[in-house]
Amino acid sequence: MSTAGGFGDAGSDRDAPPTKSFGKLDAASVSGPGWTKVSCPCCTSDRVDPLVLVKLGQKVRPETKRWLLRLIGAPQKDGGAGLLAHPGEDASGDIIVVSAPRCTLLRATEELGLCKTYKNGDMEAFSYDDRDNFKDSDNMEVFLTLAERQYFVKYELDGVRAQRDIRIPGLDDSYTLQPRDNIWQKLSSAGVIVDTIALHNQEQLRELTKAWYVGNQLAQPLDSVNSYFGNSLAFYFSFLDFYTWSLLPPAVLGLAITYFSGEVAKEMVESVSGAEIVVDDADAGPGVSGHMVQAVFSMLWSTVIMELWKRRSASLSYRWGTLNLAERFAEPRPGFHGNLGVNPVTGRVEPLFPEWQRDLRMALVSVPVVGLFLGLVIVGMLVFYWGEAQVKQIHQDWDSMWTQTLLFLPSVLHIAYTNVLATVYRTVAQALTEHENHREQSAFDNHLTGKVLVFTFFNYFAVLFHIAFFKQDVPLLRKRLASLLIMTQLINQVTEVVIPCLVDRFISAPNRVESEDDPQEDKFRNQGALPVFPGLFAEYIELLVQFGYLSLFSCVFPLTAVLLLINNITEIRSDAYKICKLFRKPFSAPAANMGVWQIAFEVLSFVSVVSNCWLLMLSPRIQTDCVEGELSCTNVLLLAVAMEHVLILVKVVLSVLIPDEPGWIKKKRLHIEFKSIQALRQQNTVPGQS
Amino acid sequence: MSTAGGFGDAGSDRDAPPTKSFGKLDAASVSGPGWTKVSCPCCTSDRVDPLVLVKLGQKVRPETKRWLLRLIGAPQKDGGAGLLAHPGEDASGDIIVVSAPRCTLLRATEELGLCKTYKNGDMEAFSYDDRDNFKDSDNMEVFLTLAERQYFVKYELDGVRAQRDIRIPGLDDSYTLQPRDNIWQKLSSAGVIVDTIALHNQEQLRELTKAWYVGNQLAQPLDSVNSYFGNSLAFYFSFLDFYTWSLLPPAVLGLAITYFSGEVAKEMVESVSGAEIVVDDADAGPGVSGHMVQAVFSMLWSTVIMELWKRRSASLSYRWGTLNLAERFAEPRPGFHGNLGVNPVTGRVEPLFPEWQRDLRMALVSVPVVGLFLGLVIVGMLVFYWGEAQVKQIHQDWDSMWTQTLLFLPSVLHIAYTNVLATVYRTVAQALTEHENHREQSAFDNHLTGKVLVFTFFNYFAVLFHIAFFKQDVPLLRKRLASLLIMTQLINQVTEVVIPCLVDRFISAPNRVESEDDPQEDKFRNQGALPVFPGLFAEYIELLVQFGYLSLFSCVFPLTAVLLLINNITEIRSDAYKICKLFRKPFSAPAANMGVWQIAFEVLSFVSVVSNCWLLMLSPRIQTDCVEGELSCTNVLLLAVAMEHVLILVKVVLSVLIPDEPGWIKKKRLHIEFKSIQALRQQNTVPGQS
Repeated sequence: MSTAGGFGDAGSDRDAPPTKSFGKLDAASVSGPGWTKVSCPCCTSDRVDPLVLVKLGQKVRPETKRWLLRLIGAPQKDGGAGLLAHPGEDASGDIIVVSAPRCTLLRATEELGLCKTYKNGDMEAFSYDDRDNFKDSDNMEVFLTLAERQYFVKYELDGVRAQRDIRIPGLDDSYTLQPRDNIWQKLSSAGVIVDTIALHNQEQLRELTKAWYVGNQLAQPLDSVNSYFGNSLAFYFSFLDFYTWSLLPPAVLGLAITYFSGEVAKEMVESVSGAEIVVDDADAGPGVSGHMVQAVFSMLWSTVIMELWKRRSASLSYRWGTLNLAERFAEPRPGFHGNLGVNPVTGRVEPLFPEWQRDLRMALVSVPVVGLFLGLVIVGMLVFYWGEAQVKQIHQDWDSMWTQTLLFLPSVLHIAYTNVLATVYRTVAQALTEHENHREQSAFDNHLTGKVLVFTFFNYFAVLFHIAFFKQDVPLLRKRLASLLIMTQLINQVTEVVIPCLVDRFISAPNRVESEDDPQEDKFRNQGALPVFPGLFAEYIELLVQFGYLSLFSCVFPLTAVLLLINNITEIRSDAYKICKLFRKPFSAPAANMGVWQIAFEVLSFVSVVSNCWLLMLSPRIQTDCVEGELSCTNVLLLAVAMEHVLILVKVVLSVLIPDEPGWIKKKRLHIEFKSIQALRQQNTVPGQS
Repeated sequence: MSTAGGFGDAGSDRDAPPTKSFGKLDAASVSGPGWTKVSCPCCTSDRVDPLVLVKLGQKVRPETKRWLLRLIGAPQKDGGAGLLAHPGEDASGDIIVVSAPRCTLLRATEELGLCKTYKNGDMEAFSYDDRDNFKDSDNMEVFLTLAERQYFVKYELDGVRAQRDIRIPGLDDSYTLQPRDNIWQKLSSAGVIVDTIALHNQEQLRELTKAWYVGNQLAQPLDSVNSYFGNSLAFYFSFLDFYTWSLLPPAVLGLAITYFSGEVAKEMVESVSGAEIVVDDADAGPGVSGHMVQAVFSMLWSTVIMELWKRRSASLSYRWGTLNLAERFAEPRPGFHGNLGVNPVTGRVEPLFPEWQRDLRMALVSVPVVGLFLGLVIVGMLVFYWGEAQVKQIHQDWDSMWTQTLLFLPSVLHIAYTNVLATVYRTVAQALTEHENHREQSAFDNHLTGKVLVFTFFNYFAVLFHIAFFKQDVPLLRKRLASLLIMTQLINQVTEVVIPCLVDRFISAPNRVESEDDPQEDKFRNQGALPVFPGLFAEYIELLVQFGYLSLFSCVFPLTAVLLLINNITEIRSDAYKICKLFRKPFSAPAANMGVWQIAFEVLSFVSVVSNCWLLMLSPRIQTDCVEGELSCTNVLLLAVAMEHVLILVKVVLSVLIPDEPGWIKKKRLHIEFKSIQALRQQNTVPGQS
């Protein structure tokens, strides 16, 4: 935990950017001036922890800044944010440093429905009225994690709404605020606020990196990650960790099959060399082939893994206090709009937007547009195949240097087309989701992620599915899969880490050389110079695509799991490095699970049964038998279909039978539910609330 | 609503068994003596409604009866049931009439988590402390339905436990009660209590029958059914109603297909006559056959119907106040046993039984035993086919009168075997479920129903599946289906209604001739002479089997829906008659839905896709094309598989997209949830409860 004095101490360490005592802020944290005053006596503290940096536009007039400082510092009942603001070193400078007093933090904890440790050691839904019975509720730096405190500051800033008509000093009249206008959004669009940045805590960060990726630890410090970076990142790394370990069984099986079965080895050689080697079936026993064992295993494995992950995820969620978040009862997200009305659930006046209208927008706008883009992917693929055939023909006919280079044209054009399409799609998906007008941030995120996810996945797998289901060419599939596995992993590692690292070192870094003498303010400012953290989409999609290779097509290439295992062990470290060093510290809303990614992985695990059964049917041995008339094609097909149905049944049964949360979590959840029912019964009627 | 005086009035009506003023009870309801005293001043009422009749053993000594009366009447805090007891006409007779005072009823309402109409017209979870703000909470006969009051009496009686060592007067020492012994169970096993019977209210019953099945109403009086017979029966009749109406579209389609497509008509004639008629394909257009339209329609129809039913079920549950039942927080069911301990959810001392032990018992005992019985069904079927082949052979070889009769032997033996197996299985299922030791009555019921359901369904459909999937004989399937549809409906109607009705009229009724002069007590006693209501299993399984015929095999016999529609319209009436007249009034626990039947119908609707696609592939036209080489068999199979996958996908998407509850119910539910979270936050810590 950093104290105000701690900033100075932290500066003397070598392996982190040097920081130094935060001049005026430091003084402020001792005596008070500089920071806005708190209205509540219990919140006066002898040290204030700078949490968030607000960057103002260059042209912002001093009176606007003063007004903004007052707004941030004013109590919530007076229409302010109820936070603490500091104008920085230079009162007319372009930054405001924001922190939060105890009461505001505690109220936000209650409002968002976080659970905290009760005096008896259990996690209980935090209640402001009962705050003294929660452990450490007098010390915010222990009671709340850094990520939580920073998110709460952002949550309060984002939620400030005008209570009446307000003219902002220093801005012209077109920016006059109307009642219920979101002030932060208005100020951003007016160019007053350029950025809101979560500040790193160098001391904590150094400790975290030490425990995380410096050295050869096998376990990740998930709790520290959670407290420093917040739930969503912690869930990602927990999943990455869990998933990497669970790759061990299929990796071992893959190695065993490769070792014991000459058949598979031959097929691999064949796939790499591209030459057709006549497979000698005599030595590989007659019944079950390595193929089949691998396929059946990986199909059941994927379900078991996802069910176990759900249980682990529930435990983590309990541990991190997000088991019963109350987002749906909190204020709607800032971008939400609608006619003012009384929310029938909470009884508060807020914008309302009918559910059916959202459904209509999704059905009539979002679905067709997404479908259109998926169609464009297919069209692109077909045109690519057609073009490839054409240039091959031309090359055969003419055979010159020119036609030789022409051979690459379809691929180049296709890659360019795909990339342009993906970029356009991202913008469209954002707009579509905005148009759907979701009330909760998590719903917005899930719908946006879902849209991009479907497209990206389609983009990745369209070619493989085409090879598997239409061309029915297993050797080609194997070749593609092997090259994709190795190439995409390499490319990912390079683009994700090496390039940003180089850019950071040689282009960005020289512009923000820090010396120990720099004022603390400049160091904060420097953090704003780092690129914004792009979110976890790229990380998750990488895992999903991996999981797709493994579960959809693993039976054609048994070493998939081994390659993925190796990749992921480095991936954990490179992701950790990236997030600690190369980007701004992200804000992280409380989250109880991986959201839509959970569903994506589960859906994939069911689709894998269909694809694996199909591929098994296409496997060389069975096709040979089929052609040689040992088995009728129809019977093989019937067998594959029967097997598919049985496997899907087994998977459904497995996923129903394995409870989604461990028994002890269920008991805790029921206990919380029971307590609230009891409370409701004992409560005397609150007047005016029905 | 009956008043005490109303009993007398009711007696003068003609179309119901004559009843008369209830001698002493009537006096009691005015002045008090006869009924046990209530301890609570707010519960003293000038009329007491007899709700439940407790029948004692013949040999019960007067001191035991007196003790029992005191036990029933004693307040709950003193270890009694907190009810009102009346010794009947003759203080030493073998009945006790039980009623309930206001406070006990209200407390039970709260404990079971029922919702009632709040003063503002919304349904809110009932709270005893806030009772005065609920509508009609001063008049129990309006506030609670008859079914609820009777169930609450049974619930309180079943829940009475010894607080310390008690020797029951008039019984020997082997029946001494230990602390926490369930007194009602102990008394039943000691033969003191023979039966607990819910009493009919003749006036309400007459009104109900008038609105229900006397006359030609199209709509059922579901609310009255609910208030008189309770939730589970009301849900059954609501579902029957809903399902019957939803048979209209497939019935119309079936008729249209039969009318417009000569092909299908021919097939039907063929199926009835058994002769093979050469199908002329020329007139039925080339692409889509009636078969296919019917099949695809019925597959999608079944999902839409089940989703819409879920929504209707949620609305009914809200309307009947069972939207958030709190069974899991109430006392465990009487038969539950385990080591005494503190329930981690409620903090109460009660028997505990670890979840994993129950799971273990299910996995290691229940599942294998159920599997064994399913295996026995298959063995029976195979032996039957083998035996049939054998006797046919013998008949061919010998051809005599003897062998002629021998031909029936396998069928007779098979029917006998199946029936014996079913009877044994029911006992076994009961024992298995008892052994699983479920805490909640609903869990017990669902597991028992589930077990019997799987077996019964298997028993019904094994032969049809065998014909469809192994023999692949569509004409035989059609013949079987038509005969089953017509025969089982007829047999069901006869066994369910006609036989009990005849038995009632000619065998039971003469033994309980009632005259107007009979004391009220004897009329109560006569109700005990009726057979116990056997539960809804038979009714539901009939619907499920119907639904199975319709969704699994409808494409081979398009008129299925028409036949079912006709059957169900009479079924509603005959079921209503049966339940009103031929059985004792059942006790009915509050229920929020159909329980396990909901799942059974949904599973069936998914299995139907597999069976329909398979049957379509076997359809004569396609098989002809296949044989004639117009289509390769493999391609037909591939097409069927592809179609199956698409349909399953569409069904999954449909069932995800159609919300399980209407938007307004979701808002109400969230509102209740929000209120309890608010209450929990505002609540000051209750000492001793964490």
